[in-house]
Parts: sequence; C-alpha cells; structure tokens
Amino acid sequence: MMACMTLTKSAMKELRGLTRKKSREQEGKFIIEGMRLVQEAAESDFSILEVLHTELIEGDPAGSALLHKLRRKTENIHAATRKEIDAISGTVHAQGIIAIARQKSWPVDALLGSGGGRRVLVAFDAVSDPGNLGSMVRTCDWFGIDGILVGENSVELYNPKVLRATMGGIFHLHIAERVDLLAAVTRAKEQGFSVYVTDGAGETHFDRVHFEGKALIIFGNEAWGVSDQLKGLSDVRVAIRRYGAAESLNVGVACGIILSALHRLNDE
Amino acid sequence: MMACMTLTKSAMKELRGLTRKKSREQEGKFIIEGMRLVQEAAESDFSILEVLHTELIEGDPAGSALLHKLRRKTENIHAATRKEIDAISGTVHAQGIIAIARQKSWPVDALLGSGGGRRVLVAFDAVSDPGNLGSMVRTCDWFGIDGILVGENSVELYNPKVLRATMGGIFHLHIAERVDLLAAVTRAKEQGFSVYVTDGAGETHFDRVHFEGKALIIFGNEAWGVSDQLKGLSDVRVAIRRYGAAESLNVGVACGIILSALHRLNDE
Repeated sequence: MMACMTLTKSAMKELRGLTRKKSREQEGKFIIEGMRLVQEAAESDFSILEVLHTELIEGDPAGSALLHKLRRKTENIHAATRKEIDAISGTVHAQGIIAIARQKSWPVDALLGSGGGRRVLVAFDAVSDPGNLGSMVRTCDWFGIDGILVGENSVELYNPKVLRATMGGIFHLHIAERVDLLAAVTRAKEQGFSVYVTDGAGETHFDRVHFEGKALIIFGNEAWGVSDQLKGLSDVRVAIRRYGAAESLNVGVACGIILSALHRLNDE
Repeated sequence: MMACMTLTKSAMKELRGLTRKKSREQEGKFIIEGMRLVQEAAESDFSILEVLHTELIEGDPAGSALLHKLRRKTENIHAATRKEIDAISGTVHAQGIIAIARQKSWPVDALLGSGGGRRVLVAFDAVSDPGNLGSMVRTCDWFGIDGILVGENSVELYNPKVLRATMGGIFHLHIAERVDLLAAVTRAKEQGFSVYVTDGAGETHFDRVHFEGKALIIFGNEAWGVSDQLKGLSDVRVAIRRYGAAESLNVGVACGIILSALHRLNDE
C-alpha cells in the first residue's frame, strides 16, 4: 500500500491559489470537489494531477475504492484534514475529497467535425450565472449533444459552482472553452450547419422546429439574450410562446425546452 | 407630501426577525427585496405593511414613481440607510428598497375550482432547493398555470431566494402553501383531475402526453423525485427520455419541458 503524505504549507498555498479564476487560467488546472464529481473525473479521460482526502474517505468502502481508482491516474494522493480541504475548496461541498485536474478545451474544428450526417452543437453566449451554465451543460449531457462551445464572454467553465451544477456533465461532453463565437459560428455555417438562436420575438415556435442534419443552437445572456451580431448569423429564430404573465423564462429552462425538441418520438 | 419617518431600533429589530423562517411563519409576513420585486408587489393584490427605502430611491424617477404607488397601499413608508436595509434583507439584492407584506395562501378548494373545462394545476413535493422552487414558479407563470400547490415538505415559499427566483411570479399566481399533498391530490382526483407525475421510469413520454380537461402535474424532490405514496395516486407517469450520459435532469428543467407540452401549436 502506498504511503499517504501530507502536504507542505507552500504546496497548500499553491492549491489554494486555484480558488481564483486567474490562477486557474494561468496554470490550466482546476479543482474538483466531492465524492461524486471526483468519481466522474476518475472515470473520465481528464488528467488528474493531485488528490487530497480526509481519513474518513479512506475508511469508507466507496471512498477507498475511489482512491484505488485514482491511484491509476496519479501518485500525488495526500492525506489532509477537513479544514485544509475546506480551505482549498472554498465551498461547503468538498465532502472530504478534492482533486486537481488539468483543464481541457476541445478545438472548435474537432467539434464541427468533417463528415455529413446529423450533428448537434450548443453554444453559450455571455451566460453569466454559474448555476445556469452548469445546469445547461447537464441538460446537454442528458440529450446527448455532440459538442459545446462556451463563448469567451461567458462565466468560466471551471468555476466550482459551474462544475457542481453540471453534475459530472463536464466529464462526459466535448467542450470548447473561451471560444470566439462570431468566428466559430461563421465557420460552422461554411461547413453546412444551420444556426438556431432562441429569441422571444422569433418567428418559429420550438414545437414546429425540426432539427435535421447539422445544427448549432445558441443560448444567450440571462438579461439580454443572444447578441445581435450572432442573431444576424442565425438561420432560424426559435421562440417559446408565453401563455401567462412572466416577463421571461430562465435561460436554463428555455434550453431544456428547446433541446427536448431535438428528439421527437412521433418523428421516429 | 408625506413626511418620511426613520424607524426606531425596536422596529428595526422586529423587521430583522423576518429574515428567519420561524418569525415569518409566526407573523404571517415576508420581506420583498429590490425595485423589481417591490414593483410587482405594488401592482398585485398583496397587502403591503411597510416599506423601507434609501434616499437614492426617492431621488430616482422610477423609484419615486414606485413610492407614489406604494403610498396607496400603506402609510408606513420609512427612510433608511443602505446599511439598515441590508441588515434586514440579509442578501445583497435589496438595491435600496424593501417591503414587508402579508403572506397569502389560497385555499386548496379554490384552486381545484368547481366547474368543468380545462384547468391545469402544478404541485411541488419536497422540492428542497430555493432556486429550483422559485424557477419553477416562474415557469408556471410563463405557461399560465391556473394554480400551484406547494407541499408542506417543500422549501418555504417566502424564503428570499425563492422569491427572487420567481421573478415576480409569486405575485401573479394563485398559490396554496404548506399543503398536505396526499389529501389535496386525493380530493383533486375525486373532482375529476387526472394526476401526472414525472418519473424517469414512467411509461409515457412527455412528447406523447395530451393534457386535456383537468390536470394536476406533480414535481418532486431533487434527489428522489415524487414520493411513492403520491406516485401511487397518479394516472400517468411521464418520462423524458435520455439520449446521453447524465444521470438525471434538473427538476426545474424537467418542469419546463413537461409544461411546454401543455400547449402544442400542432394541436390547435
């Protein structure tokens, strides 16, 4: 059995740095918190660089099995106190285990693909709430989306609140991060993608959209929606008709409704 | 023009008490934070008991118009410092104005109605996340739901995070609070309602459900869904088919997808 070393103070300080977006971007690393997300990471092809866990995790059967799995990915597995882990996680969700992993961003061209056939991509333009971005990644994961483009003006994908709300989706999907969406959408159109934007004033009700071939669906900012420049590149503006008094729908809910129209049983 | 009085320390203490659920329930009052929600409250038939605002609000045209409207509802309008207001709001969203209003819970029988015709109610069973409950109220408000039953085991409707996520929906809809759902659903069935529950293992895909006549749709807890007892009362178990790797959908997203099936343009 491998000895579990405790971390030096300077190593702890370096890890705590990763609670800041700037350090995460500079180092290309991020923090994964809690049994569930670390489990998903262990089963993914993400590179895990370091793991910190409490004694309790080692004593627990599921925890010990997880540590066994993690040892295949990294030798840097350290015992730590709950307090040390909480200091790094910066949230109350670490549940005694955190992992440090290398960020991964798929190239846009890989997501666009090269062949014909059906392919559905989703892009996020200036989504600002971490819970919304994470929840939409989770929804994309449910509906089997082929790839996600996170615009450079959206909240950071590796923000811990985003990660948690993805419920592991970040480890299942092909995601390009900090994407110049105007350039990417232009390239997608050249390659035969139809571009859909959600728009309260859209002319096509989601219930009547038939997504065929290559589709790129854009969701926008919580307050002002998809930018006018991106709207200008769209082929179809999709609306969800209102029947009550609310001023708007939550963007994560709108995303779920529109992606649910991707697979119609009655079309099959 | 009416003089604006500042509040005494003991009055401030009483208002601060309303940041606690227990005091809200005992006094039957709640706190409404920020221009947008206070505006919605001012235009609703909720009783407003008290308003606190900063000088900035009075100086701002929209703020001053809102105060004018509020004076028709209450004489208890007080000037306060930003610090005093933040102490009562307990959040960072008060934006210089808060109102205290009387809680309102519609009787279940009023929501069930008496006549025939189409009627759609939504019930929430043990929803625990404030953002989810609020977001679902907002979605109900978008789709023009006739009434909402919040189960006694759900998060409190008057929690400030719930209120904020409703985006004003709480002021537009007929909502019964702290409802014994087993009793209410039983009564609904006696009165001719068909009961729908969302269930991953459900036999009917949402895309094939046709909501007709009187419908009651139940959404459940984030982790374990709708309780077995309530499931036992259901007529239709509705599923949303999975095409990817996610373990589950967020309940607020599932709610949006299923309510979006209430109005099918192709049926019209």
